[in-house]
Amino acid sequence: MAGREMKKPTAAEARLRPDLLGVIGGMGPLATVDFLSKLIALTPAEKDPDHVPVIVSSEPQIPSRPRAYFDPDDNPSPLHAIRARRDMLLGAGAQCLVMPCNTAHYWYEELTGDCPVPFIHIVEATQAELRRRNINGGVLGLIGTEATLAGGLFERPLAEAGYICIQPEDGVMQASVRPGIDLVKRHNTADAEPYFRRAVQHLLDRGAAVVILGCTEVPAGLPMTDQWIAENCVDPTAALAKAALDWAEKVRRDLTFD
Amino acid sequence: MAGREMKKPTAAEARLRPDLLGVIGGMGPLATVDFLSKLIALTPAEKDPDHVPVIVSSEPQIPSRPRAYFDPDDNPSPLHAIRARRDMLLGAGAQCLVMPCNTAHYWYEELTGDCPVPFIHIVEATQAELRRRNINGGVLGLIGTEATLAGGLFERPLAEAGYICIQPEDGVMQASVRPGIDLVKRHNTADAEPYFRRAVQHLLDRGAAVVILGCTEVPAGLPMTDQWIAENCVDPTAALAKAALDWAEKVRRDLTFD
Repeated sequence: MAGREMKKPTAAEARLRPDLLGVIGGMGPLATVDFLSKLIALTPAEKDPDHVPVIVSSEPQIPSRPRAYFDPDDNPSPLHAIRARRDMLLGAGAQCLVMPCNTAHYWYEELTGDCPVPFIHIVEATQAELRRRNINGGVLGLIGTEATLAGGLFERPLAEAGYICIQPEDGVMQASVRPGIDLVKRHNTADAEPYFRRAVQHLLDRGAAVVILGCTEVPAGLPMTDQWIAENCVDPTAALAKAALDWAEKVRRDLTFD
Repeated sequence: MAGREMKKPTAAEARLRPDLLGVIGGMGPLATVDFLSKLIALTPAEKDPDHVPVIVSSEPQIPSRPRAYFDPDDNPSPLHAIRARRDMLLGAGAQCLVMPCNTAHYWYEELTGDCPVPFIHIVEATQAELRRRNINGGVLGLIGTEATLAGGLFERPLAEAGYICIQPEDGVMQASVRPGIDLVKRHNTADAEPYFRRAVQHLLDRGAAVVILGCTEVPAGLPMTDQWIAENCVDPTAALAKAALDWAEKVRRDLTFD
């Protein structure tokens, strides 16, 4: 076989699996860890190799999503930085992408237009979770950053699906939601918890059947195994983990039965 | 400038930072999340971008480290798979590597011989933690997988530094350490905790000043904020996170003052 050489496989080729998940994280870092924890917890695994293989960018030096949303003329867009992380994950072999940050989904169209693999939308994953819980309409409470709420990231698709979303009143945003999110970003989840509980109760009092925790810092700052929270809240981070697991399990099934 | 074209930066170049940490994880997945959590908790951060940028491989389809250690003739080496993950992280721009799995450090020499960036050894990080706690000699208890204990991964360097390591008796390995590790690998940390507490108490009863939790599943299965555990145990995962943070802070300082 003169003239032919064995080409050494690239690092990506050596690891390539059809169920390799890429996580565009770091927005913030604790929300990324919360996503990974929930993915592990949801996976029926006896041994290490049963878990979904994951590659993660948790490189939080990304321009502020809320600032770019509210004041795009005076603040850099996060799009270039997020796209560079996406391209790194694709180059490393990711076959599906998730992004555990709700606000960043404003740039979802720009991130998926030229993306060669599935990219699971956190709001679609949340809608699937609502259906699993047999909540098919009615009033939903919605907690999130000011940008997520103002832009209708959840509200618009949920309205199309027949839900009515209510948001915290301004005073509750200032006194409960915002301080809670800031505490989680400083890794102080213990102090954040009562802030978030007050915001959830406020929305239940106003008629919400359940409250969507539409900022990934919020479920990261709440004990989601607590019965009151599990019953009254919907966790988009867990819903995204479930959707990612479903994707990986489907890929594995298709391979097995083909 | 005819004939010259702006070359589009690669995804790695667009994200390149001198403090970008690469994590060779997935051994097991929960230990990786434990490492990331501890790195975040140790970092003095007010906002997302203050955190250390991290890229992670948590691709647990790696041949068993203990089986390859005890029976190398009949089991595949994990080296090729770990090296492919290392190369992916290097290609994505990692400027320093860590591997939150003790047993995998048997292949440390092979992984670092041709590695162009620092690769922090988990046992060296643990020794630094012992010095920080002013434990400079005497008897240390050591919990780990059978492979970590049999191969002297901690024992040899610690003996050279003047420590005496004692290990759990066989019965305690079978009845406490092994079942606890297996429970964590199935994400059942609540049930694992009493097993690990019994193993720690056993070593304290036999004269250990502190007990090194030398398998990353063990601290992942214990509440390290518990005062009794914090006082009586040394956590190599937390020590590795501290060493990684020290590295990143030094890189940042050197840049600032150059």
